Amino acid sequence: MDIQRPYLLFLGDVPDQLAAKTAQGIVDWRPDWCVGQLRLEGCKADCGLKDMSIGDAAAAGAKTMVIGVVNAGGILPDHWIAKVIEALEAGLDVASGLHKRLKSIPEVVDAASRHGRQLHDVRYTDRAFATGKGTRRPGKRILTVGTDCSCGKKYTALALEREMRKQGLNADFCATGQTGVFISGRGISIDAVIADFISGAAEWLTPAKDEDHWDCVEGQGSLFHPSFAGVTIGLLHGSQPDAFVVCHAPGRKHMRGVEHPLPSIRQVIDRVVLEGSLTNPDIRCVGIAVNTHSMGEQDAQDYLAATGAEHGLPCVDPIRTGMGPIVDNVIKQFHA
Amino acid sequence: MDIQRPYLLFLGDVPDQLAAKTAQGIVDWRPDWCVGQLRLEGCKADCGLKDMSIGDAAAAGAKTMVIGVVNAGGILPDHWIAKVIEALEAGLDVASGLHKRLKSIPEVVDAASRHGRQLHDVRYTDRAFATGKGTRRPGKRILTVGTDCSCGKKYTALALEREMRKQGLNADFCATGQTGVFISGRGISIDAVIADFISGAAEWLTPAKDEDHWDCVEGQGSLFHPSFAGVTIGLLHGSQPDAFVVCHAPGRKHMRGVEHPLPSIRQVIDRVVLEGSLTNPDIRCVGIAVNTHSMGEQDAQDYLAATGAEHGLPCVDPIRTGMGPIVDNVIKQFHA
Repeated sequence: MDIQRPYLLFLGDVPDQLAAKTAQGIVDWRPDWCVGQLRLEGCKADCGLKDMSIGDAAAAGAKTMVIGVVNAGGILPDHWIAKVIEALEAGLDVASGLHKRLKSIPEVVDAASRHGRQLHDVRYTDRAFATGKGTRRPGKRILTVGTDCSCGKKYTALALEREMRKQGLNADFCATGQTGVFISGRGISIDAVIADFISGAAEWLTPAKDEDHWDCVEGQGSLFHPSFAGVTIGLLHGSQPDAFVVCHAPGRKHMRGVEHPLPSIRQVIDRVVLEGSLTNPDIRCVGIAVNTHSMGEQDAQDYLAATGAEHGLPCVDPIRTGMGPIVDNVIKQFHA
Repeated sequence: MDIQRPYLLFLGDVPDQLAAKTAQGIVDWRPDWCVGQLRLEGCKADCGLKDMSIGDAAAAGAKTMVIGVVNAGGILPDHWIAKVIEALEAGLDVASGLHKRLKSIPEVVDAASRHGRQLHDVRYTDRAFATGKGTRRPGKRILTVGTDCSCGKKYTALALEREMRKQGLNADFCATGQTGVFISGRGISIDAVIADFISGAAEWLTPAKDEDHWDCVEGQGSLFHPSFAGVTIGLLHGSQPDAFVVCHAPGRKHMRGVEHPLPSIRQVIDRVVLEGSLTNPDIRCVGIAVNTHSMGEQDAQDYLAATGAEHGLPCVDPIRTGMGPIVDNVIKQFHA
């Protein structure tokens, strides 16, 4: 899906800032794509944008209203539906990350049809993919992988795109989850694809490019996670990465949502090389990205230095220290 | 889905026996479940059952008409739809393995609703699964894995069930593909599940059982296949097998549908143990099942003997030699 920009961010009347995490991610990474925010009475979230009505946003050039919030059950309450229809009537497309599909609500579908507007349910895909073929294609790809779910893979891929561009490389972020799709304006929620087509969808997402172009692919799950390894390996095989970065959030007692212990960073590196070599025999790890948010400055610096030394790789915190050393390593290894 | 038995097998007017492969599989493995076959004028397939009209079949106690044939495009021609409706009117459920869904045809849905009958589109599942948890559960499971797709995994799992029962074990075949679903009367086409739920669907399919009960799980794809490894690893993690059998079809130049070379049997054993140990640390290979169909008797016996000796495992052809030695090994290792 290609989502037209710029966006009006719809925050509804959510009860706290955490419920607007998706919208906040868009503002953090694509501030230029956001003309304003729409908040209803009682909204406790604020993404720091100018408050606008739908009419204001349309006049300011907004092309899509993005429902960038979550609520209990992922539903779309009636008073939000009224705003969705108002946006469609004002000439905006509407995109949603909720479980409840816009396309399942007859009056929304009617309004979109009447006004010739697009509806985007970014958790879902109606696209038919081919099965993956595993054939090598031109262009370079770098994938973020993890010791667990929710340990910084999206953030790290976005930070790679930003730093690569800063250092003069030709790089694009490739989204594989709903927040990423809003941030990139295209992509697919790869965990919503039919199982037979995971690697095929990843091939579609990261097609042949110029030989010096980098796709920075947002990873999903973990090869060591008993719920999601199927998605992870399909994305690995389909994106056939030349390079990968291991993302890690220290201090967890078990993997997210299950009782399994976390693998070590070394185990992740070895397993990704083993499985990834099926479609790219030259796959290699180029760095480690750690979320040191919970540590003090000295502890964090010590942890990064020790982890980097242990693995012989640049080890950074994308927020605290930036991605510079990892991109330096990419340039040294692939652009020398 | 639970498909009511016995079946009337609908062969339509397919042009050759190969098009009735699914129906033939049902007759081979569940002859007692088949009251007869329904052939239209021009049908060139024959599964050796008594030819019956829908009225005859209903009178003989048939509960479900199974469309056990394929045609170009997986469509449902108009003159087949008429027979589907006739079956529903006669009080039979209808089950189909075609791409075209019975539930997408309004007059079929109407007839089913009018007569209170069930429609089963076994290529698809509407069931909502939980994500896999990887928690150990009672009961024993044996999974068939492969060096490639289409190398005997379904046949081997069915032959395991038959031989285990013959040797007094408590065993049930677990279907993960459409033909298998007809043969077992339940199951899911696991490659049609949403990617996030592969291992969860496999957990649902192979739930907790008595400690001495064996689920004989039909494997899918291969960990070394760049199209389908996501399905394979999710099924492996979800079914948490105690034991597995490697299936192999000698003589292939590359993996089915892609350009990749085949892995060795040893590579498959090692990789399945490595990945499978995530949810069952005691997973082990108990045998090798080879399709020696293209070999003469002596060549086949030599090949089986050499392959068994090389890996230190019983090596059989399920058709030519039977599963006895592998089930003997299971009994020795798990029921001693």
